[in-house]
Amino acid sequence: MDNSAEIICIGTELLLGDILNSNAQFLARQLASLGIPHYYESVVGDNPTRIKQAVALACERSNLLLFTGGLGPTPDDLTLETLADFFSVPLVEHPEILADIEAKFAQRGRVMSPSNRKQALLPQGAAVLPNSLGTAPGIIWEPRRGLLLMTFPGVPQEMQSMWRATAVPYLQAQGWVKETMVSRMLKFWGLSESAMAEQVADYLTLSNPTVAPYASHGEAKLRITARASSTAAALALIEPVETAIKARLGLDCYGTDEDTLASVVGALLLQSQQTLAVAESCTGGGLGQMITAVAGSSAYFLGGIIAYDNAVKVNLLHVDPAVLEREGAVSSEVAVQMALGVQAALKTDWALSITGIAGPAGGSDTKPVGLVYIGLATPTGQTLSFKHEFAGFRGRDWVRHLSCCSALDGLRRQLLQPAA
Amino acid sequence: MDNSAEIICIGTELLLGDILNSNAQFLARQLASLGIPHYYESVVGDNPTRIKQAVALACERSNLLLFTGGLGPTPDDLTLETLADFFSVPLVEHPEILADIEAKFAQRGRVMSPSNRKQALLPQGAAVLPNSLGTAPGIIWEPRRGLLLMTFPGVPQEMQSMWRATAVPYLQAQGWVKETMVSRMLKFWGLSESAMAEQVADYLTLSNPTVAPYASHGEAKLRITARASSTAAALALIEPVETAIKARLGLDCYGTDEDTLASVVGALLLQSQQTLAVAESCTGGGLGQMITAVAGSSAYFLGGIIAYDNAVKVNLLHVDPAVLEREGAVSSEVAVQMALGVQAALKTDWALSITGIAGPAGGSDTKPVGLVYIGLATPTGQTLSFKHEFAGFRGRDWVRHLSCCSALDGLRRQLLQPAA
Repeated sequence: MDNSAEIICIGTELLLGDILNSNAQFLARQLASLGIPHYYESVVGDNPTRIKQAVALACERSNLLLFTGGLGPTPDDLTLETLADFFSVPLVEHPEILADIEAKFAQRGRVMSPSNRKQALLPQGAAVLPNSLGTAPGIIWEPRRGLLLMTFPGVPQEMQSMWRATAVPYLQAQGWVKETMVSRMLKFWGLSESAMAEQVADYLTLSNPTVAPYASHGEAKLRITARASSTAAALALIEPVETAIKARLGLDCYGTDEDTLASVVGALLLQSQQTLAVAESCTGGGLGQMITAVAGSSAYFLGGIIAYDNAVKVNLLHVDPAVLEREGAVSSEVAVQMALGVQAALKTDWALSITGIAGPAGGSDTKPVGLVYIGLATPTGQTLSFKHEFAGFRGRDWVRHLSCCSALDGLRRQLLQPAA
Repeated sequence: MDNSAEIICIGTELLLGDILNSNAQFLARQLASLGIPHYYESVVGDNPTRIKQAVALACERSNLLLFTGGLGPTPDDLTLETLADFFSVPLVEHPEILADIEAKFAQRGRVMSPSNRKQALLPQGAAVLPNSLGTAPGIIWEPRRGLLLMTFPGVPQEMQSMWRATAVPYLQAQGWVKETMVSRMLKFWGLSESAMAEQVADYLTLSNPTVAPYASHGEAKLRITARASSTAAALALIEPVETAIKARLGLDCYGTDEDTLASVVGALLLQSQQTLAVAESCTGGGLGQMITAVAGSSAYFLGGIIAYDNAVKVNLLHVDPAVLEREGAVSSEVAVQMALGVQAALKTDWALSITGIAGPAGGSDTKPVGLVYIGLATPTGQTLSFKHEFAGFRGRDWVRHLSCCSALDGLRRQLLQPAA
């Protein structure tokens, strides 16, 4: 049998839909990145008969079985005793685990409850897979030649930490990891997924690296994924493709991997040593929140004015009441005056404003839900405005999120112009 | 065989971890709410041999098989042809489906590509499970007596809409739904999950309704779930328990189900016909965003000032520079002055302020990351402040989110006091 892994998630709460199975996704992605084939995943409840059926089936078709869940102290946590029973070995108490659990309770000023004693029982012959974050250790166990089992708790943080700290190094040392998969995500704003995909159609047929389009939250993405014997070799496959795609798509590509529109704008402002303020109507503070989600944003972001009510637009942002009356709050003119008003009030180099109709109410034939104007005041006294018509039927959160992102993208493009 | 359902999700993208399997959770929860037992879930890739193995196994142990994924137009969408092959029937083209697909393309001003023709092919004997949102229909099929299959596309919105519009009514009409499960979620702020659970320990052992504790994003929750022959009968089981728990936990219970702290505060302000403004430092607009996430919030929320930089606190909120110097920006005194400042500037009845250290930088021994002060100015000229020490090691987003929620909760408790 060629090497292949199988994921078995144990827990009645999964079958009831109480929990989203993010553990399966995490392990699946990790197996893919390590180049370990993986063809099946299954979920079973806290039921010994059905757990054994799942194990019996998995042993026939895979030689690395990864279990999550069922390691807790309660009577319905059955993973280890069921595995011991299936492979006909007894459970053995590990004094060092018991001491570790007692110490963890003592750290929190609590006494270990008798039920936790169960977590120190492992199948005979199984090695401890340590859990630094919780009380339930996992196991690494070869119950018979050529079959490797690992168990993890259901708590995602504990599972992920145990996987990274112990399971991956073990698999590498045992020769399971034949190649490395490295991905780079390119992120785009201002073009649709299909428009992006059409522009890079010739790259989508590559086999190594592969190039795959994604979309989420109004943003288009391209994932470039390479497999190679080392990270450096994989990066060497990725880099020419990344460079060529960026050159072709130009300003629409705003960043890679962990970049956000706010972090990219922040880096540009830091570089130019300039400051920013915001004036928000329909987004109610969302743009400021997005900007300040970036640690260190106090170096360039001074603050803003949330002008949800028109009186605030007039009194604090000095929007002309006559213009407000004539053009309406959702207009290019008001957006520009809001940006100028907050730029003056906070004495910043740049200012961004947003005014729009987030819905569900408030739309009209001429100004439908989803209509949003963004204003921008530049350090040289210029003003710009951008009109957007977002899909109002996708809801209030959608319109507000896209408004904030579009405002940041408008500023980003200005900051990147040589003569901004 | 007793009735039981099994979920089979098809898609190599799931095995690669590219997609979080939210479809399995949705269907699992739906099955639970309909009282249809469900013991297994599995995931397989776009591979006919492995799909057939999964079907063969599922047929042996379940009599309602729900498939998601693999209904698209591309060559790796294999669900229907594999099922037809497994049950030895041919695929039959349905002209009415073809016409529907062509019409959907025409609506978007596009021409149907030849590959979409495939989506009009269904196994002989299968009924159409219509898809109003996309081009790929599903099927409802009894390939042999006592075995019911339904297929859904992998796109969650399409799958959910098809499930609700057609699959559930069909299952009800066919006698699959023996009982109804109804849940009510009680939501708490200001006490931990364990403190909450201890206070209602006697309820956690009930069997119908069941009462189960949850926690997410700093919030404690209790889910009361009843099974009965009708929704009304289930609600009659829930209501006395809900009333008793609310009476016992008092103000800590802020709402139920779809309520948010912001929606509850909004309803109280609407009721008292009062207005609100915010002054935000470390949350950068997040409190305003949370408040304005509620549709109709313009009736009571006028706006606010994002005073990220100290100069904004002094110039726009009129915080005393001497106090700022002496106490520091993160202090009870500055929080109170910020609230008073924004109350005066926006002329509102109530004002909330937040100043704190969100991290990761900026903390000290006396003022660690996670220290947050909330200020509140009341309509009668009183001021209050609340000090919080959130777990800074849980990160910037955590501290900011809890700050916004705690500010709203502080206001909620004041609004509920008879003599506020």
